Amino acid sequence: MKLKEDIAIIGVGVTPFGELFEKSFEDLVVDAAYEAYADAGVTKDDVDAAWLGTTETPYISGNDGEAPNLGDYLALFPKPVSRVANFCTTGMEAVRHGAMAVASGMYKMVLVVGAEKMRDVPSRGSLIARHVNMTHPVLCKGRTAPGQFAIRATRYLHEYKLTDEVFAKVAVKNHKNGALNPKAHFRKEITLDQAMKAQMVAEPLKLYDCCPTTDGAAAVILTTKEEAQKRKADYVLLQGIGLAVTGGYYTTMFDADNSYLNFRATQEAAKQAYAQAGIENPRKDLDVAECHDCFTITELLNYEDLGFCKKGEGYKLIEDGVTHLDGEFPVNTSGGLKSTGHPIGATGVRMVSEITQQLRGRCEKRQVKNAKRGLAHTLGGPGIVSCVMVLGR
Amino acid sequence: MKLKEDIAIIGVGVTPFGELFEKSFEDLVVDAAYEAYADAGVTKDDVDAAWLGTTETPYISGNDGEAPNLGDYLALFPKPVSRVANFCTTGMEAVRHGAMAVASGMYKMVLVVGAEKMRDVPSRGSLIARHVNMTHPVLCKGRTAPGQFAIRATRYLHEYKLTDEVFAKVAVKNHKNGALNPKAHFRKEITLDQAMKAQMVAEPLKLYDCCPTTDGAAAVILTTKEEAQKRKADYVLLQGIGLAVTGGYYTTMFDADNSYLNFRATQEAAKQAYAQAGIENPRKDLDVAECHDCFTITELLNYEDLGFCKKGEGYKLIEDGVTHLDGEFPVNTSGGLKSTGHPIGATGVRMVSEITQQLRGRCEKRQVKNAKRGLAHTLGGPGIVSCVMVLGR
Repeated sequence: MKLKEDIAIIGVGVTPFGELFEKSFEDLVVDAAYEAYADAGVTKDDVDAAWLGTTETPYISGNDGEAPNLGDYLALFPKPVSRVANFCTTGMEAVRHGAMAVASGMYKMVLVVGAEKMRDVPSRGSLIARHVNMTHPVLCKGRTAPGQFAIRATRYLHEYKLTDEVFAKVAVKNHKNGALNPKAHFRKEITLDQAMKAQMVAEPLKLYDCCPTTDGAAAVILTTKEEAQKRKADYVLLQGIGLAVTGGYYTTMFDADNSYLNFRATQEAAKQAYAQAGIENPRKDLDVAECHDCFTITELLNYEDLGFCKKGEGYKLIEDGVTHLDGEFPVNTSGGLKSTGHPIGATGVRMVSEITQQLRGRCEKRQVKNAKRGLAHTLGGPGIVSCVMVLGR
Repeated sequence: MKLKEDIAIIGVGVTPFGELFEKSFEDLVVDAAYEAYADAGVTKDDVDAAWLGTTETPYISGNDGEAPNLGDYLALFPKPVSRVANFCTTGMEAVRHGAMAVASGMYKMVLVVGAEKMRDVPSRGSLIARHVNMTHPVLCKGRTAPGQFAIRATRYLHEYKLTDEVFAKVAVKNHKNGALNPKAHFRKEITLDQAMKAQMVAEPLKLYDCCPTTDGAAAVILTTKEEAQKRKADYVLLQGIGLAVTGGYYTTMFDADNSYLNFRATQEAAKQAYAQAGIENPRKDLDVAECHDCFTITELLNYEDLGFCKKGEGYKLIEDGVTHLDGEFPVNTSGGLKSTGHPIGATGVRMVSEITQQLRGRCEKRQVKNAKRGLAHTLGGPGIVSCVMVLGR
């Protein structure tokens, strides 16, 4: 099944990502929303309802991240504002809910904001760290995010007889792209040598294999295709939206063949989105993609799970330069989570913004030529929830 | 605007509410969902997606209340599962999102579960209490839930020259109804004398003016009207869904006339739902209602905000017995939050279940005769977010 109609994205806004100690959660939300309003050529009065995607903020700061506060900062009263959360897919979940709401006929135009303020607490104040302190049955055994993905990285190298240089190459590519993205947390290139000699975090993942902890917000304005055309907006359509949940926190379900490598959540979410968008050969039918490179290994596995290549061949795409900005199929033109950073609730919305701007031809130095169709993908929890969106002109 | 089609409720499930130390969060979710499946005559395989409404649980117990875990307990993998939260409207928000998703065409049948496990921590472990400990700028000044509603109660008595007996009468009515509800937390009648002589909590609100802290879960199965008819289901339609946000946590927006009594959130949410359902005279067009009696004063204000009477005349409905079970317009036939308890995420779903069962004629000793149309209403935060649903046959 699919939405009764494709929903149009008519405006996007992304704050600079980084360590934004001088900006409050409210500032980030307002900055992202007003950039999206301006881009769409609308005002807050045109918006019928709003969604907030945020994960850590309410845990850390109490009520600041709750839905009604979004209405507060943005002066949306008395309009409906809701909050959704689903681990690292939170931002894309907010977009998904906004799109379903417009397609349902309930609202004509909605604002979706994803935001996260993560640097105001020390690392040990973060949600995951607190769970470790709370003797969480899984996390207290060291199965933190780097630990979990390191297990897959180790097996990947073993299975395909590779060295960790393949991970470093992903980092080098994404830092190179990030250097061209004025909104990225890290806007500098790194060398392969730097990546290889970096400090170990969770073997075999080193410093540059891990995305940073970052503050930031992103927003999109969604409406019907009819309304977008009426307004002569420079719009992009949401042609497919897939969400899959394949495990709880303690019951990770691995890929169908139990290789303990790939993520079934991504495979299932992609299957839904591709069916809706009529995509049969992702590599051929898509021109650009943003995928969830929380760690470099994840990007390689995503290539396989999203059908950009066969299982076990993800590393070839980076070795052969296929996914480089000047390659045949550019992935993470923004710099990915690796360079832009990963403010959890914001990430999915930022990815949708990046693909929207690519399809509109507005990405300047990191623009992919003739991009007509693109994909955005997030993966959450211990690889057990994934959202995939196909965007097209 | 409204949903392109009315969505059908074909099954409901409610766990017993109470101090359920012997039941885990997982148990409650499973019990409610499987009762709803059985009632709808469906299995989990018929469900395309699910929503979880829960508020306190993830704060208290970490990941246990996150969306993917719902898929875990209920063996829904790899289907989409999402979590929404919006203070005390959380449960009804989950129903609202499920209904929009079905109306959008994305899914044919969805499961909505609201659940909360609140008694596993002492009162000082609760979300609000923790905010007080954290020197929350508002709550640390004593503006906890009882304190906030006590301010309105005081003004109500002053404004309309009443005594607190009017509050006690609401408590007596709701305890009487609760005694007829096998799922209620408190299933015993109380006398007016007991209510009047009870311990003071926040003047003028005494013990029986306040709803208890409770564990519980509720579930509903939603589908299209066409599918409900095809299955020959005993269904009820969602004819109107309103959500309004009229303040952040620090910026409560009072009613339009600034009397500091009524809740603009409820008024605005009702306006939306009534317009969608074509309701012009709520008292005449509706036969039964569940409203958010977190405190007895709230029920009286709700009568006014929901248009059951004029402003300042809410107390007359209870004085005249209009809203009693055998009155002209019964309100809170379940016993309300007062007697059933208030597991935050579960409450809204439980209310929708109660109205569904009233319209199906399945409420046994608390059945309202010939109920054709009913209303469910929740109010959240410091009275700044409200959801109103109109259900009909």
